[in-house]
Amino acid sequence: MDRKSVGLVQSHTYTFADADEPLVLESGKTLAPVAVAYETYGSPNADRSNAVLICHALSGDAHAAGYHHPHDKHLGWWDGMIGPGKAFDTDRYWVICSNAIGGCKGTTGPASIHPKTGKAHGLDFPIVTIRDMVDVQQRLITHLGIERLYSVAGGSMGGFQVLEWALRYPEKVRSAICLASSARLSAQGIAFNAVGRNAITKDSAWAEGHYEGDGPENGLAIARMVGHITYLSELLMDSKFGRRLQSADRLSYDFSTEFAVESYLNHKGNAFKRRFDANSYLYMTKAMDYFDIERSYGPLNRAFADIQARFMIVAYSTDWLFPSAQSKALVHALLACNKDVSFIEVDSPYGHDAFLVEEDRLAQIMAAFLSGGEKADVLGGHS
Amino acid sequence: MDRKSVGLVQSHTYTFADADEPLVLESGKTLAPVAVAYETYGSPNADRSNAVLICHALSGDAHAAGYHHPHDKHLGWWDGMIGPGKAFDTDRYWVICSNAIGGCKGTTGPASIHPKTGKAHGLDFPIVTIRDMVDVQQRLITHLGIERLYSVAGGSMGGFQVLEWALRYPEKVRSAICLASSARLSAQGIAFNAVGRNAITKDSAWAEGHYEGDGPENGLAIARMVGHITYLSELLMDSKFGRRLQSADRLSYDFSTEFAVESYLNHKGNAFKRRFDANSYLYMTKAMDYFDIERSYGPLNRAFADIQARFMIVAYSTDWLFPSAQSKALVHALLACNKDVSFIEVDSPYGHDAFLVEEDRLAQIMAAFLSGGEKADVLGGHS
Repeated sequence: MDRKSVGLVQSHTYTFADADEPLVLESGKTLAPVAVAYETYGSPNADRSNAVLICHALSGDAHAAGYHHPHDKHLGWWDGMIGPGKAFDTDRYWVICSNAIGGCKGTTGPASIHPKTGKAHGLDFPIVTIRDMVDVQQRLITHLGIERLYSVAGGSMGGFQVLEWALRYPEKVRSAICLASSARLSAQGIAFNAVGRNAITKDSAWAEGHYEGDGPENGLAIARMVGHITYLSELLMDSKFGRRLQSADRLSYDFSTEFAVESYLNHKGNAFKRRFDANSYLYMTKAMDYFDIERSYGPLNRAFADIQARFMIVAYSTDWLFPSAQSKALVHALLACNKDVSFIEVDSPYGHDAFLVEEDRLAQIMAAFLSGGEKADVLGGHS
Repeated sequence: MDRKSVGLVQSHTYTFADADEPLVLESGKTLAPVAVAYETYGSPNADRSNAVLICHALSGDAHAAGYHHPHDKHLGWWDGMIGPGKAFDTDRYWVICSNAIGGCKGTTGPASIHPKTGKAHGLDFPIVTIRDMVDVQQRLITHLGIERLYSVAGGSMGGFQVLEWALRYPEKVRSAICLASSARLSAQGIAFNAVGRNAITKDSAWAEGHYEGDGPENGLAIARMVGHITYLSELLMDSKFGRRLQSADRLSYDFSTEFAVESYLNHKGNAFKRRFDANSYLYMTKAMDYFDIERSYGPLNRAFADIQARFMIVAYSTDWLFPSAQSKALVHALLACNKDVSFIEVDSPYGHDAFLVEEDRLAQIMAAFLSGGEKADVLGGHS
């Protein structure tokens, strides 16, 4: 076990909303009840002003750090960043992570049982947006007695939520850390998501979204394979796999899984289809497609006028799904509104995955950014 | 009709090989008979020394220029480059294009009827390689009475064939034009092909390759969608589609095909599944995966030692499937062997598709390169 791990952790569930007071979604549709799966690491201080909310990406969940069983081989997805002495130092901060609405890891989503029908929602589940994810998180942190978040942080789709938090609840966000993300999903991003969704919905096992049991595993695996190509840089693919054959010295002259990179993608696809719900994949990708700050808050260079959060924007040099230029556009927009923003472009071969991988290199910078906020607050330099 | 079109053209078929003298493939397997569909434009000169062979890319065919019927709306795939006064000037050159072996447009491939069984080969068809494609073309040009090609040209997978021609038949290639290509398919290229093949083979209609009728149309369409993302630059996708909705002003909050870029990909996928054979897609992509000059000819910087062709290498600035750096590696390898090579990087937003789209910009340069060879030959400057 990692000595610096937060150790054994537990998932919790907070349930809210009922038929009389349902959750009203951005689409105008309503949902009730809403269960939110979440975990916390570290402890709240007296006035609960040390809470850091972590927002997960497309396939993430509430289990961001530690382990669930003493012999658990799998640590939380951001364990390298969350723990005693780590970037999100659980000796100082009360770190919270929840599964996004529409997800499939404990929070209400398309695989949840509809209270009226006793069956999974399936495609009857309403479309959810990044704003809806943030609204649900806001209900959770209010429930936890938090008036204002010390910080909110996340990468990729998590970064979308970070931006939405700062914009939608300006008075509740003291600082914001947005990694490998953007003010909107690009046309290319939408295109890759569309391929993934097509792979799922054209799988005959999808059954118009009302599958039972395994569901469209093949389609989901293909969607994940496409995803993984976009998460790695060409450079890393080349150095990690190149044209190496998986288990032979000579070409097989057949259609077996032959190259190491094929084997890697197959493995990733197969692992994913066992742990993720295909409908949830549709909803999460659609939420990403819909994210567009300008649609919700007007021209980018004026959109951040009312935010209160200090910002840290992080881009990665070989990320081609969320290229640096998209992070820089965020920085320019924040500066145009005279906001406090730190920008770092991390030189990394890991592509988009870098936000999950390059933990050590970012830890110190992030810790400094977080502490800086504290000091600045003491000095009254920031509201 | 385009005034400069070669006009009405006909497909021809050349058939060779029989049980006694089959075509021996790179894998060691044999094939007989082999039919080759081809077209020619312009006329041979007296000694047939003005032949230019055009090699098509993954989804291309022998129909490179002109039209098949007087009211045909579809011109050949490289009509902008081939015709009177065009880059491949049919007033001067005898231009030939054939469908690659393993294809589905008249040349023997997996959809061809097996003479013994009376059924399509399906997955019983042997794996073919770029070398096999070139060997079949070599049989064709010999049949056409051509001793030496004035030039051989192609982009992407066509560029692989150009390289293979110069390496395998050095005495038969006077000049070579290789566009948007590489000395080997990259790990990322293999990865995208693997996704496309998975989409096809996981489609239940594929039936282990022995489908009849429509076959795995959904899988083939998904493979094509992935392909099209890789053919366009992010820049072009953004300027052409951005986040524009296809047919509404407001978000639909459902899973319909909503964004213009989704609609574009769907259209491309659907058009492709009607015109291409899914098994052929498997074979063509596998041939690309296998292409690797070093595997066949040793270290790249020595591989070109024996070639006689002058080379023109063309890269496109926003091509991320075959990035400029891969073209430059070819240039360096040719220079390392003291070969005559011209390199052009065309600044274009069209990504990999640029080799099909940027016809006007390249026409003059290519015409000059081709003529230059003629003059140099007159002067005895080149063997």
